[in-house]
Amino acid sequence: MCQLLGMNCNVPTDICFSFAGFRARGGLTDHHRDGWGIAFFEGAGARVFLDPCASASSPVAELVRSYPIRSLNVIAHIRKATQGEVRLENTHPFQRELWGRYWIFAHNGNLTDYHPAPSDRFLPVGGTDSERAFCHILDTLARRFPDGPPPPAALHGALRELATLIGGHGEFNFLLSDGERLFAHCSSRLCYVVRKAPFPVAHLADEDVSVDFSEVTSPTDRVAIIVTTPLTDNETWRQIPPGTLLAFHDGEPEALGETATIAAPAAADPQRCA
Amino acid sequence: MCQLLGMNCNVPTDICFSFAGFRARGGLTDHHRDGWGIAFFEGAGARVFLDPCASASSPVAELVRSYPIRSLNVIAHIRKATQGEVRLENTHPFQRELWGRYWIFAHNGNLTDYHPAPSDRFLPVGGTDSERAFCHILDTLARRFPDGPPPPAALHGALRELATLIGGHGEFNFLLSDGERLFAHCSSRLCYVVRKAPFPVAHLADEDVSVDFSEVTSPTDRVAIIVTTPLTDNETWRQIPPGTLLAFHDGEPEALGETATIAAPAAADPQRCA
Repeated sequence: MCQLLGMNCNVPTDICFSFAGFRARGGLTDHHRDGWGIAFFEGAGARVFLDPCASASSPVAELVRSYPIRSLNVIAHIRKATQGEVRLENTHPFQRELWGRYWIFAHNGNLTDYHPAPSDRFLPVGGTDSERAFCHILDTLARRFPDGPPPPAALHGALRELATLIGGHGEFNFLLSDGERLFAHCSSRLCYVVRKAPFPVAHLADEDVSVDFSEVTSPTDRVAIIVTTPLTDNETWRQIPPGTLLAFHDGEPEALGETATIAAPAAADPQRCA
Repeated sequence: MCQLLGMNCNVPTDICFSFAGFRARGGLTDHHRDGWGIAFFEGAGARVFLDPCASASSPVAELVRSYPIRSLNVIAHIRKATQGEVRLENTHPFQRELWGRYWIFAHNGNLTDYHPAPSDRFLPVGGTDSERAFCHILDTLARRFPDGPPPPAALHGALRELATLIGGHGEFNFLLSDGERLFAHCSSRLCYVVRKAPFPVAHLADEDVSVDFSEVTSPTDRVAIIVTTPLTDNETWRQIPPGTLLAFHDGEPEALGETATIAAPAAADPQRCA
């Protein structure tokens, strides 16, 4: 299987702290050595860093760990190959464009006997079940909403249907983002934490590193971190119930009906890291 | 305007040497400071490194200069913004998928009064004339060849038509690749060199750096470098005649009818850099 990491925020935040622990799982604290990747949305743009080797020793991962890129939505993946060889074209996350927006997708799990009708628009480049599922999802959205992006509730509903349908073929934990929202589907294992004031001192589970978030945030910042297994050993991570698709927006899940805090502009310009 | 750099080879080769000189043009030896990017094809996969800042001081560019990624087709771009703000979504090269292949595109020039009929399939994410042209090209190819990639000559013919049509709106130097071939269209400024045995000692024009290619290649290697203005000051660069679309394959232009040398497997495994 693989490891997923997602971040959704109400102000652009860097993921250096969380990524430091996450990358260790690619060959150091865990055995997922078959490539890794991370995608950052910045405005309407997206940039994806990929390396078809172990993240723990990847020079590209070292850059990502040390170069603070501030983003509202991030998706990262560490691969343990099940279907598809260890090659760049099978390295998550995958990227396509729909409705003039970039879409980013990464999957943890394994789908069996999954052969959706080929799309005439979104075709897989590699040989993974994951990229097949991503193309199937985008093709279905494009057909169902030909005039452009639907309202968030309709998009969430369509994705939930698709997640259930495709999830019938096996384990289908995934993260998907169009830069506006981050959708997290739990089929077996996925948990999250929302960091907001009062901010904790967090300590990584995979490395002996701590950060005092109160020093690098402003009081209205809110950051959701979604991950396969908890990244820190002193925060309360919530398990997403299997069969659930959460839509994260402005640093918290919309589907849980939590009260949203309106983010005021920050007085200072803190570092903002997660 | 902007600066283009392309590489097409008959064996996977790294571009560290050429990139060292090229990146200096983004803020050091030239004034193109509005972002830069580079795309590497590796097998069917592609990875694109983007940074919406000056390449001369970009940490991502430092990684690319020092991390040898071997590729058959590379496209790089340094931006001086004409249309579209300095933002990630306006940073070249652009990427899309067509026929189950990734396509990469970068443009030098400026198109005026260019408003192609909007595609219902490939939509620009940013605000540049360049991404509009890329989407127009892919949309036309998808409509003309709905069953998949046509033979190389038909693809070249269609692209030449499109280059002429779009080039009627202004300067349209571009590099385009599907990982198989690298297409280079010269509208005003684009030149190339083919490096093959006997290999020279090449000296960069933008930095005082030399490399003896005979030490890092095998005798059957062939590498074409295509660039806006010559990268080295002691090689013979050929100007591509304005109005010409060259298709580079296996390290040389096909359209010039040069005799192709069949590349035998290399006995040793040299570093292969360009």
